[in-house]
Amino acid sequence: MTATPSQAEIAAFLAASFPQTKCRVESVSAGTATVRHPVGEAELRPGGTVSGPVLMTVADVALYVALLGQIGIMPLAVTTSLNINFLRKPSADRDILGVCRMKKIGQTLAVGEVDLFSEGELEPVAHAVGTYAIPRP
Amino acid sequence: MTATPSQAEIAAFLAASFPQTKCRVESVSAGTATVRHPVGEAELRPGGTVSGPVLMTVADVALYVALLGQIGIMPLAVTTSLNINFLRKPSADRDILGVCRMKKIGQTLAVGEVDLFSEGELEPVAHAVGTYAIPRP
Amino acid sequence: MTATPSQAEIAAFLAASFPQTKCRVESVSAGTATVRHPVGEAELRPGGTVSGPVLMTVADVALYVALLGQIGIMPLAVTTSLNINFLRKPSADRDILGVCRMKKIGQTLAVGEVDLFSEGELEPVAHAVGTYAIPRP
Amino acid sequence: MTATPSQAEIAAFLAASFPQTKCRVESVSAGTATVRHPVGEAELRPGGTVSGPVLMTVADVALYVALLGQIGIMPLAVTTSLNINFLRKPSADRDILGVCRMKKIGQTLAVGEVDLFSEGELEPVAHAVGTYAIPRP
Repeated sequence: MTATPSQAEIAAFLAASFPQTKCRVESVSAGTATVRHPVGEAELRPGGTVSGPVLMTVADVALYVALLGQIGIMPLAVTTSLNINFLRKPSADRDILGVCRMKKIGQTLAVGEVDLFSEGELEPVAHAVGTYAIPRP
Repeated sequence: MTATPSQAEIAAFLAASFPQTKCRVESVSAGTATVRHPVGEAELRPGGTVSGPVLMTVADVALYVALLGQIGIMPLAVTTSLNINFLRKPSADRDILGVCRMKKIGQTLAVGEVDLFSEGELEPVAHAVGTYAIPRP
Repeated sequence: MTATPSQAEIAAFLAASFPQTKCRVESVSAGTATVRHPVGEAELRPGGTVSGPVLMTVADVALYVALLGQIGIMPLAVTTSLNINFLRKPSADRDILGVCRMKKIGQTLAVGEVDLFSEGELEPVAHAVGTYAIPRP
Repeated sequence: MTATPSQAEIAAFLAASFPQTKCRVESVSAGTATVRHPVGEAELRPGGTVSGPVLMTVADVALYVALLGQIGIMPLAVTTSLNINFLRKPSADRDILGVCRMKKIGQTLAVGEVDLFSEGELEPVAHAVGTYAIPRP
């Protein structure tokens, strides 16, 4: 295991690894992370709801950040599965926050869960569980 | 149930419902659909692989198109869950094709599966199962 | 919605609905439940680990009990999906506890998550997310 | 990779590994398998439907058999996740058949899908996707 990276190190790595993402790291500690995705025209569907793929992106990034916060910067960790349930209609005018808690970080596999919120709401708009494969050293 | 919509009708509806999507409808018949997503700089991660959220988007759209091909244009059908397994590294220079087969279309719930391919490859890069809630008439 | 049933009412309903189950209701309140499954020869695989189907059963029952605790006794509620991740090897000599929290109880669909523990351990042996279809009144 | 085991070898291994299971191996070849579970009083719920845990068990065993058919007898392969969607009410008086096709067998992770049928029916009663961790040699 490498030393725990700082939030700035993870943010820099994220920007390099996912150059398209609008997600920003809000906080990260060992095995937990919160990320934020702005919501504007590009994220909305007619009727004023955040599109599903945006929520899936936030879940994926939150898992990745929480994992890196625990095991250190590891470019070759890859998502192997993601399961997401959409629970409530997101707000059209609030950022999406993804709050991740890792459930297990093993030698080859990590599992975490993410609650996704419209900022300021108490009940999640979606809930995801994802797994990551950790490369062998 | 409405009459089965044509591919052009579904494509028009998709463009209106998901104005951001780059997915195009390749084919659609009752309960099956194939959609295509171009792959360029915006879809790639460093190292030359298609990002996970792009694959999730293609899965979601393929399910939606296959469902509409069966039940007709229904704006209020919403994804309730998506489960995706990432199987192989996608090619950086091939479009992604999503091939959906619905497994069940009930009165309130529809379930389908999607194989995702780098165009021209025989083995899928990912496999997804999704559920849609169908609004009551 | 009916009045919240008592733990005894739910236990009686469970015994009638799942006559084979060894699960017992430990506690139930609105949207949460804990159930217990004894572990003996019938639950073990060679090597001394609790079999996966036992864990899946506990997850399914815990979800059902938490749902009934919220919406009242409703014989026609059925599981529509279950997603489980196996995290750690369960103990061969401890009961399995399933602790469920509902994430959403809508008009037609309910979603909950379950942590499964070997009794007395802090880290879960598995984690599940399930959905239930609620019949129309 | 070891030599492909025969159906009899897999059946013997299954009986030793899952001594409680009533599942029988109907057929197995590289990466595919069909297993059968008898349906009697012990599998039924009031109203005459096969219980969900029985279906989950069949899915788990079908995946295991298909995997062993490909990689050989490997006692330490363990299920890491299972995602199941329940599609239709099973018959009370027909065996359950689980038909598995592996989607990927990698060095450390295998993914497969299973259609579950009431024997003689064309449409599946459930569909599952599972992942197995393959121990390092």
